[in-house]
Amino acid sequence: MPSTYSGDPISQSTALVQVVRADAFGTSRQEDCLAVEEPLEISIAYGPASMRQRRRIAVTMRTPGHDFDLATGFLFTEGIIGHAGDVVAIRYAGASGQSAYANELIVELKSDISIDMDRLSRHFYTASSCGVCGKASLELVQTTACYALRREHPSLLISQLLQMPEKLNAEQSVFATTGGLHAAALFDPEGQLLDAKEDVGRHNALDKLIGAALKKEALPLSNHIVMVSGRASFELVQKALMAGIPVLAAVGAPSSLAVDLAAESGMTLIGFLRDGRCNVYTAPERLK
Amino acid sequence: MPSTYSGDPISQSTALVQVVRADAFGTSRQEDCLAVEEPLEISIAYGPASMRQRRRIAVTMRTPGHDFDLATGFLFTEGIIGHAGDVVAIRYAGASGQSAYANELIVELKSDISIDMDRLSRHFYTASSCGVCGKASLELVQTTACYALRREHPSLLISQLLQMPEKLNAEQSVFATTGGLHAAALFDPEGQLLDAKEDVGRHNALDKLIGAALKKEALPLSNHIVMVSGRASFELVQKALMAGIPVLAAVGAPSSLAVDLAAESGMTLIGFLRDGRCNVYTAPERLK
Repeated sequence: MPSTYSGDPISQSTALVQVVRADAFGTSRQEDCLAVEEPLEISIAYGPASMRQRRRIAVTMRTPGHDFDLATGFLFTEGIIGHAGDVVAIRYAGASGQSAYANELIVELKSDISIDMDRLSRHFYTASSCGVCGKASLELVQTTACYALRREHPSLLISQLLQMPEKLNAEQSVFATTGGLHAAALFDPEGQLLDAKEDVGRHNALDKLIGAALKKEALPLSNHIVMVSGRASFELVQKALMAGIPVLAAVGAPSSLAVDLAAESGMTLIGFLRDGRCNVYTAPERLK
Repeated sequence: MPSTYSGDPISQSTALVQVVRADAFGTSRQEDCLAVEEPLEISIAYGPASMRQRRRIAVTMRTPGHDFDLATGFLFTEGIIGHAGDVVAIRYAGASGQSAYANELIVELKSDISIDMDRLSRHFYTASSCGVCGKASLELVQTTACYALRREHPSLLISQLLQMPEKLNAEQSVFATTGGLHAAALFDPEGQLLDAKEDVGRHNALDKLIGAALKKEALPLSNHIVMVSGRASFELVQKALMAGIPVLAAVGAPSSLAVDLAAESGMTLIGFLRDGRCNVYTAPERLK
């Protein structure tokens, strides 16, 4: 039962398949819509024109669509670029015709951007001399983050917060058909949904959202709320912090290290935001 | 609001925190239980006694508990080791006292195991000459997997399958208190739950399950069903295939590439297994 990809291969984020549906009463054949998952290789080109170099930074399994936002958001949240202006151009590369999707991106950086190769070759939470531990992870994020969060800003009505899941659901178009995508959504303090991105990877959905904001030169997002459809991991809090986001709300549970990082950074971390309730884990003073 | 870790630091997989609970009627303070997330660095020691070398293989964010199973399962599903006997010893390393958790593991391999360093330094789905695409990802898994799946084996009653979610829920002890963990469970064809593992990372939960089976020399799991609590990604299908698992069932949706890999491998891939129903995406002939 191979899946059937149709339509524009680049922007296509769903695929139709034939499935057997089974329940206590028997089986039947029907059609189902899947979220597309494909590898994306992100490379950077850097250095002065006479010594231009290329380096592969990451391969991530993602849902095609908003690839440029994903790549710039990823480079930003990993601390490799700092501004939209650091990127000169982005283009697809690689031989064509071997895949229905364009899966290799090259991000051309300004010639005077210096890349810390040491940083790239170590994973960020093992770079501390303290060794591998949660404390080292927290400290390294603190020293890397560009923006400090302002206490008690923004001020957010609990009633607005509790309405966000419904607004996100209304926006999640691909999820509605596939049930297979994570989402990240950007809200203003009045509870208006400004942007939403979807992906099979929850970190990718947030990187797409942050990359789109970076492109608009809207960082830091110091007056905004980000809501994610799944759980809140350390990695999601770290990415939100890099973008200066003061409030992160998740439909699911946060992890211990996510709460620790939010507490140390003064970020308001909210979990279990669903069914008209939520738990506020850190910095509840932003909520009224 | 820093989290409070109590009890045995090594085996502790939950943490208590104070939270503000908010709903339409107001706020209240209460206690909440979180799933612990901490980095784990996995290194291997290899080579003959006179030329013993050590190399870091991965850092993963995981929930402490069953770390040895996680490390061996990871090394196996990544194709670095092939048998339980390839591992001579596993031990925690690193300076103590800097973290409440032991987060550095060294896996001592038999002196005659040869490690393909090229393979380790490339991510597996970019190693094909075809470039970065779903097709290359599929082909590389086919050439790496040790076990071929036997068609129409095992034979599984749909009524048994539909009861698995309830059995998994009954077993998910940490999830029950935190809501924050993914689970992977091993069932026999009669629907008996044999083992279950939990983790903040869904791939880690499956690696723990496979690592535990490897330790018992129970691979390939050619007569078994694995159920996972979340969605079915390419990576989960790939790991299941490495362990020779013929049936993978997920509570959530599969991705397109997960379905493609299952179809090419002859694995039965089931999604949306909940509320007394499911969708069978590939190889439905194993279901009766």
